[in-house]
Amino acid sequence: MGHGVHVTDLFGIGKKYEIGCGGKQRLAVIVRKDGTKELYAFEKGSSDEPTAVIHLEEDEARRLAAVLGGTFFSDD
Amino acid sequence: MGHGVHVTDLFGIGKKYEIGCGGKQRLAVIVRKDGTKELYAFEKGSSDEPTAVIHLEEDEARRLAAVLGGTFFSDD
Repeated sequence: MGHGVHVTDLFGIGKKYEIGCGGKQRLAVIVRKDGTKELYAFEKGSSDEPTAVIHLEEDEARRLAAVLGGTFFSDD
Repeated sequence: MGHGVHVTDLFGIGKKYEIGCGGKQRLAVIVRKDGTKELYAFEKGSSDEPTAVIHLEEDEARRLAAVLGGTFFSDD
């Protein structure tokens, strides 16, 4: 399961997960100790400035995870 | 589980999941029939042009889902 994800401890903050993509983009997720998450997208090549930063509360991250993981089922 | 997510069928393409965020952003995920996914981020207010588009292959989406959902565990 660790395949393709690089985990770094951010002391006092939380953890950083870097997800290697085959495509032109690179993703990083910062998981803070309070449960909030930040999703960063980078273009490959330019590793410094993210092209997108998405802030997610814990419940938003959970919903997005369900949709992306294919485990989301609607009530209605 | 359907709470906070609006699902639309995109005929012939797949499904669109809109995730309401409390914050200043809105998210939409297009799940295509071939398993690839596109994540769109919008600033609230301006609903037309996404501020970010992230293309994800099926395995990338699965890894990101594990990290966001808190079910990712590293081997190393």
